[in-house]
Amino acid sequence: MALSRLNTFTIKSSLFRQQLPQNVKCLSNLILGEPSGPSVKTPIPGPKSKEMISELNNIQFSNTVIYFTDYNKSIGNYIVDVDGNVLLDVYTQISSLPLGYNHPDLLKVLQDPDNQRTFINRPSLGLFPGQGWPQKLTSSLMAVAPKGHTQVTTMACGSCSNENAFKAAFMWYRNKQRGGAPITEEENNSCMMNVGPGSTPFTIMSFKGGFHGRTIGVLSTTHSKAIHKLDIPALDWPIASFPRYKYPLEDFVEENKAEDRKCLAEVEEQFEKYNKAGKFVAGVVIEPIQAEGGDNHASPEFFQELQRITKKNGAALIIDEVQTGGGASGKYWCHEHFHLPEPADFVTFSKKMLTGGYYSLPEFRPQQGYRIFNTWMGEPSKVLLLEKVVEVIKRDNLLSIVQASGKKLMDGLMDMSKRYPQHLKNVRGIGTFCAFDSSSAEKRDEIVAKLKEKGVQSGGCGDLSLRIRPALVFQPYHADIFLHQLEKVLKKIKTA
Amino acid sequence: MALSRLNTFTIKSSLFRQQLPQNVKCLSNLILGEPSGPSVKTPIPGPKSKEMISELNNIQFSNTVIYFTDYNKSIGNYIVDVDGNVLLDVYTQISSLPLGYNHPDLLKVLQDPDNQRTFINRPSLGLFPGQGWPQKLTSSLMAVAPKGHTQVTTMACGSCSNENAFKAAFMWYRNKQRGGAPITEEENNSCMMNVGPGSTPFTIMSFKGGFHGRTIGVLSTTHSKAIHKLDIPALDWPIASFPRYKYPLEDFVEENKAEDRKCLAEVEEQFEKYNKAGKFVAGVVIEPIQAEGGDNHASPEFFQELQRITKKNGAALIIDEVQTGGGASGKYWCHEHFHLPEPADFVTFSKKMLTGGYYSLPEFRPQQGYRIFNTWMGEPSKVLLLEKVVEVIKRDNLLSIVQASGKKLMDGLMDMSKRYPQHLKNVRGIGTFCAFDSSSAEKRDEIVAKLKEKGVQSGGCGDLSLRIRPALVFQPYHADIFLHQLEKVLKKIKTA
Repeated sequence: MALSRLNTFTIKSSLFRQQLPQNVKCLSNLILGEPSGPSVKTPIPGPKSKEMISELNNIQFSNTVIYFTDYNKSIGNYIVDVDGNVLLDVYTQISSLPLGYNHPDLLKVLQDPDNQRTFINRPSLGLFPGQGWPQKLTSSLMAVAPKGHTQVTTMACGSCSNENAFKAAFMWYRNKQRGGAPITEEENNSCMMNVGPGSTPFTIMSFKGGFHGRTIGVLSTTHSKAIHKLDIPALDWPIASFPRYKYPLEDFVEENKAEDRKCLAEVEEQFEKYNKAGKFVAGVVIEPIQAEGGDNHASPEFFQELQRITKKNGAALIIDEVQTGGGASGKYWCHEHFHLPEPADFVTFSKKMLTGGYYSLPEFRPQQGYRIFNTWMGEPSKVLLLEKVVEVIKRDNLLSIVQASGKKLMDGLMDMSKRYPQHLKNVRGIGTFCAFDSSSAEKRDEIVAKLKEKGVQSGGCGDLSLRIRPALVFQPYHADIFLHQLEKVLKKIKTA
Repeated sequence: MALSRLNTFTIKSSLFRQQLPQNVKCLSNLILGEPSGPSVKTPIPGPKSKEMISELNNIQFSNTVIYFTDYNKSIGNYIVDVDGNVLLDVYTQISSLPLGYNHPDLLKVLQDPDNQRTFINRPSLGLFPGQGWPQKLTSSLMAVAPKGHTQVTTMACGSCSNENAFKAAFMWYRNKQRGGAPITEEENNSCMMNVGPGSTPFTIMSFKGGFHGRTIGVLSTTHSKAIHKLDIPALDWPIASFPRYKYPLEDFVEENKAEDRKCLAEVEEQFEKYNKAGKFVAGVVIEPIQAEGGDNHASPEFFQELQRITKKNGAALIIDEVQTGGGASGKYWCHEHFHLPEPADFVTFSKKMLTGGYYSLPEFRPQQGYRIFNTWMGEPSKVLLLEKVVEVIKRDNLLSIVQASGKKLMDGLMDMSKRYPQHLKNVRGIGTFCAFDSSSAEKRDEIVAKLKEKGVQSGGCGDLSLRIRPALVFQPYHADIFLHQLEKVLKKIKTA
């Protein structure tokens, strides 16, 4: 396989010894120059970080800053802070780095003079795309498109991706309602004043615990944390429950099936309620795994049935893969694990895809120009980098690495959940997209903080969960390091 | 002055001869390698562009594409298409290129190995900013901050910039309402379901003809063209009239003053109506010049009075400088021409600033973390480029160039408005941010199309207007070329 091209080196520490599944033959480090493990020299944030946080605070609110980072020294799976602390990063800038830090192939993209101009001539892509743009889309986004998706629209960020998918769904729905009738002058005039018939009373259904972004439209479909929504006006759009399973799954098969049925019944109820009221539900937006909301999983059967109900009600199914997409599930798109009978209507992305945007079925193409449009419509330099990412993922067989590392993580976490059940429970994950719950928000925060002291950067999500979001170059021996440090933390908490 | 560093060369053609105001002494071309003028070889779009449009159309709606561009060959004020046509660009990617194409100083930023890593390690700026980030903000955005503005928040695009300024205004307004009382559990719980008291009934006032972006929140404040808004749900937020002046201004002083009064009275009425209904107006958003809506200008007195009314009603004044900001008015911020008694509460930006974001007064800092937040919060690579742009603007005295070129444009257009009154009227502009009206949308579109045939890329705005949006390296002799080609077009239309 392509991986055999990489140098093999011997890992001496038993900590790093690994058992690889058959399809991952390589024992080598994928990123040359990665340290052999984390090292922590100062409290975090260290003195230099603290000084910089205080400087930054003069010009913007900065109390969310964890530490200042040395992006020249950070490499592969390791983030290095300005105080010289080296942390294994299983959070990766909120799950947004596909190949970790300073990947040599991405650096080469920047060093190529032919590419440099792409970074300083940002076009208005809807008007003046550059030579070769269709080919660039084909060799990047379209090369990894979900099955059945022939259309892609690029955007700048995750929120804009979902906002525009919603807009495309509204236009499609209204177009169906019109049944071929032309747009009227009354529609054109009324929408300018934010009233009907031009402005529609249409809605998007979302789920409790979901996160779809922070601009005002998508924020109405976000229900993960109050602090995201407080004080902001919200649209009266339908909200259904997302399954909350009991773990381990095999012990609660019937209960969890009942949970699916309950949630799907709510979806049906919301459709009926809103459609009856004339607030027609044009789309249903859902994450394959509710990430910000606490890594809440739902079964393939739930998603299959949701697709059926959505279609029956004439609405579009919008799968938000902003956090789950790009390979961390071991497939390029997490929802591919659900074997939906038909392609989703929209699949939105950002983060690890470097560019935001959405895939859609052809029927969701706008009927007129300038309807799904903005100044930049994404950015060619992001697609140039993504093209290389896609190439490296294939060349280095990174989805198999994710599967192997994910198995390692899950096995290790399951094992620890038996040995430290008071601190680590409800282990769940697909690929390296893993999480567990602690007993309380405070305990979870304590684990995240103590892991940092041990040289591991992780992150919380939901009320009780710790999420693991490594880059795609996170190998099984990195999982070993993570698990080893986590166990050290749990031991201390246990004996405290 | 700094400009004397540049080589001087003799311009032979009388077409390019220029009269420069005293403060602009340099006759040289600011961008080495610029062609001496446009050249058009094929119909536009040419055969190569047409083929690429058809290719692109397989994967996305592409009928808005004007032509495919060769971004390697485009230089300075000249855009070069894939068929080899060279056009003087007075549209510059919808007003988003500060220094034109392939500016040598920006290329150098990319060629510096120390900078290249910034383009491949995109951080989550709210959590892990890079070493030197406060200094980078200081030497770029803060170096050109509107007077009185000590705070800046970066975002990815113009829509997100306005969305987040709105959010910050809502939080500030609610915080004032609370009067120091703590956030209640009821607020936290209710906002998760999109209802009050946690979700507020607050509103943002906007103006007919305004454009503030295309995501669903800001789209409710956009009222420039129906096609932007049709079929999309809209918020019931107050809308007032923006002045529509009669030109030439000196002939309609009283009429235009009355127009100001009428619009300001509407603002007062909307405040009263919405505040009385409990739909409290937390902010008023306005462009210094309504750009997409047709380059509608309002007087300094209008803006001064608007600020007074807004303040009296306890709302925040949000000046949207996404299109007007960054130097095209001859000042860094167009609203600086209005001599407001106090700084605006928010000034939002994007486009020529390369990064989106907003300046704000300290009282608009969020009170808690993660409230104005997202994964990326803008991008350091954009700020790195902006730092160089700001340096070049100062070094090459580009704001003076803009003033000189703007005067040239305005004088030429005024002159033509007398000679071709049937096709060119209502000339208006500040700096190079100029426009005129044609007699109908069709005639305007015809002028834009014919200018393209003559090697000039311009753009329409509003119903009847042609907008001129060159880069800051657009010199008086470029204005001569533009005016010369425009006259050729008008002559033909006249005799048609």
